[in-house]
Amino acid sequence: MTDQVISGTDLSRLRELNSLTVVRALRDQPPATVTELAKLTGLSRPAVDVIAQGLVTGGWATVVEPSGSSVVGRPARRYRFRATAGHVIGVDVGAHKILTLLADLDGNVVHTARCTVAADADPPSRLAALDAVLATCLSEAGKTEQDIWAVTIGVTGPVDASGKTTLFTPLPGWQTVDLAAHLSDRFTCPIVVENDCKLAALAERWQGAARDANDIVFLLAGLRIGAGLIIDGVLRRGYGGAAGEIGALKAVRWLTAPSHLGQCPGVPATVSPDDAAAWVFNAARDGNRDARSAVNRYVKDLAIGTAALVLALDPQVVVFGGGFSRSADLVLDPLRRELGRLCLRLPDVRASTLGADSVALGALRLALNEVDQRLFTLGLSAPVAPRR
Amino acid sequence: MTDQVISGTDLSRLRELNSLTVVRALRDQPPATVTELAKLTGLSRPAVDVIAQGLVTGGWATVVEPSGSSVVGRPARRYRFRATAGHVIGVDVGAHKILTLLADLDGNVVHTARCTVAADADPPSRLAALDAVLATCLSEAGKTEQDIWAVTIGVTGPVDASGKTTLFTPLPGWQTVDLAAHLSDRFTCPIVVENDCKLAALAERWQGAARDANDIVFLLAGLRIGAGLIIDGVLRRGYGGAAGEIGALKAVRWLTAPSHLGQCPGVPATVSPDDAAAWVFNAARDGNRDARSAVNRYVKDLAIGTAALVLALDPQVVVFGGGFSRSADLVLDPLRRELGRLCLRLPDVRASTLGADSVALGALRLALNEVDQRLFTLGLSAPVAPRR
Repeated sequence: MTDQVISGTDLSRLRELNSLTVVRALRDQPPATVTELAKLTGLSRPAVDVIAQGLVTGGWATVVEPSGSSVVGRPARRYRFRATAGHVIGVDVGAHKILTLLADLDGNVVHTARCTVAADADPPSRLAALDAVLATCLSEAGKTEQDIWAVTIGVTGPVDASGKTTLFTPLPGWQTVDLAAHLSDRFTCPIVVENDCKLAALAERWQGAARDANDIVFLLAGLRIGAGLIIDGVLRRGYGGAAGEIGALKAVRWLTAPSHLGQCPGVPATVSPDDAAAWVFNAARDGNRDARSAVNRYVKDLAIGTAALVLALDPQVVVFGGGFSRSADLVLDPLRRELGRLCLRLPDVRASTLGADSVALGALRLALNEVDQRLFTLGLSAPVAPRR
Repeated sequence: MTDQVISGTDLSRLRELNSLTVVRALRDQPPATVTELAKLTGLSRPAVDVIAQGLVTGGWATVVEPSGSSVVGRPARRYRFRATAGHVIGVDVGAHKILTLLADLDGNVVHTARCTVAADADPPSRLAALDAVLATCLSEAGKTEQDIWAVTIGVTGPVDASGKTTLFTPLPGWQTVDLAAHLSDRFTCPIVVENDCKLAALAERWQGAARDANDIVFLLAGLRIGAGLIIDGVLRRGYGGAAGEIGALKAVRWLTAPSHLGQCPGVPATVSPDDAAAWVFNAARDGNRDARSAVNRYVKDLAIGTAALVLALDPQVVVFGGGFSRSADLVLDPLRRELGRLCLRLPDVRASTLGADSVALGALRLALNEVDQRLFTLGLSAPVAPRR
């Protein structure tokens, strides 16, 4: 009777769905037995048994044979997601450095490569440095471009749908750079370009200071201040990719905030403008009165833009990240005080735990999301690098 | 062979899922034939036939018998969602008025009732007025409390998870009012209290100026300015229900913007403070120089807070709503100019098309969402008012 409402197409769709359900369960778990997977997925034990064997044959899972002996019969074999079936790359193309992380499908970083770049490097020089560090990273990791399933690159400035930063970028000449097109000469897999603040926000929720939160305002604080917004658990890009750019509004004071540090009296002439802020934070920590006052003025201005975001979005957590987060010990308490004064509800204010690696780590996370999204919407085929 | 992977539980879950799929398809469509529903849902024709008959028996659908004759055989019968199976109520409890809308499950308003309230009315008086207008609305519509499936009330100020406005409210004494508890004496169905700006934003996306958009900044502009935010198609409340309250930040000028109108030279002493803005807008329209200058100052301040939201969220559309939207003809162009100057990407700036009814309409929409959510997560039972 009941079988009459189930067509053959419905059945095949259900089986595909069930396979994906098991892959997803494996992806989020330590190695699991068929019984455990059945409980996790709500599928029957025999169904999971058939599916798991198929996933091993297909290259998506490996068998973990039981070790040692058991007093209560033969212990069950376990299945594990085969994280080394593919790899992803996350890159941070910054003003001063390029950082490349190569990871397996579980996000375990298997190799890191970095290089410095001059802040005034033109696009060809910066792209050449990127190409060189990617080549180094791949060869040192014993991989080729064909082993990579997704690449994500973080850049500064709002990134549009084509991966360009035409609205604004502090990198010289970068408005005209088509990074995805440049990289598509060597990689056949999906390539995503994303704003650095947004990626760092993703990283803090993945492995950093905001793992418990779904509503996060992330501040990338350095010589410039930017923001990345996670709302209801999802990174928000905005309609044109320019969400988080509140710092462009003079009234919220982020444009001038860092200058309080650079213009602090007493910074030695030998300290470069790029290092002045670090000098001031250290001097403030040592009790230098001018430096303490400069930090106070910095925090007061930082708090205006932050309060605007807090009042607009009412987040659970504000994460203070970026280069200046090394001096979070001087910033967090006065920032909380200012926000308490300016906001209706004070969120939890925390320091980044990922520091300078957050952008590249967030790029890895986005690359893994790209892999998962193809896996769970386009379905299972053999585990090989997807093509654009 | 293939049947082995399908358990009885899986089958029954699939049938329930298929029924919900058909209800959802009916809910969004004009009356549809079994063939059309099969195409819409991806289910087989025989499966849809069985499900549709079950929905009619259960009271969720009605049959629309084919009218007239056809040259190519007997025309197929159509099924229609039974929108009158239940009703919902949406209420706007404002400073000066209470507006109640009663609608069927398709959102068709079947009755409207309203009353005026003094701005300085204390909570018992305002609640008594609410009770009276609800009673009038129900009795004039020929309904009782038991016919109502969900009630949503809009109030001003951020609303916390318990439906209270403890952080801030301009309604005298309203911090201590527990509106949901008050109404639960008469209604057994779910009762939701929500912020007025958020509801008005929902209404503009449902039936108003932003039907085509998923990323919307809605401005409720009157003697106070508030905002409601829809991001990726979903109304955002924030972690503590206080999203959109950027107007509380002095630096973005919304606190002072309306005072430019109230303090305009030349407003006759006979005009009440509540009506001064309307007088100024009219005078500006007539070419009065002081009034035009006051409107300009108003728009410049309005634009600062709006730019902060636009830069933070990069919306597709900004909707200028609330009482002042009657004067959108004077506001929209200068607002666009200011935003163009302040923002990286200028969104589409539009006037509300719902005006003063937007809050109550948004309350209806939220009540319908509540009904749908129960329907599609808790499953189908008989069509009767759900209990909390």
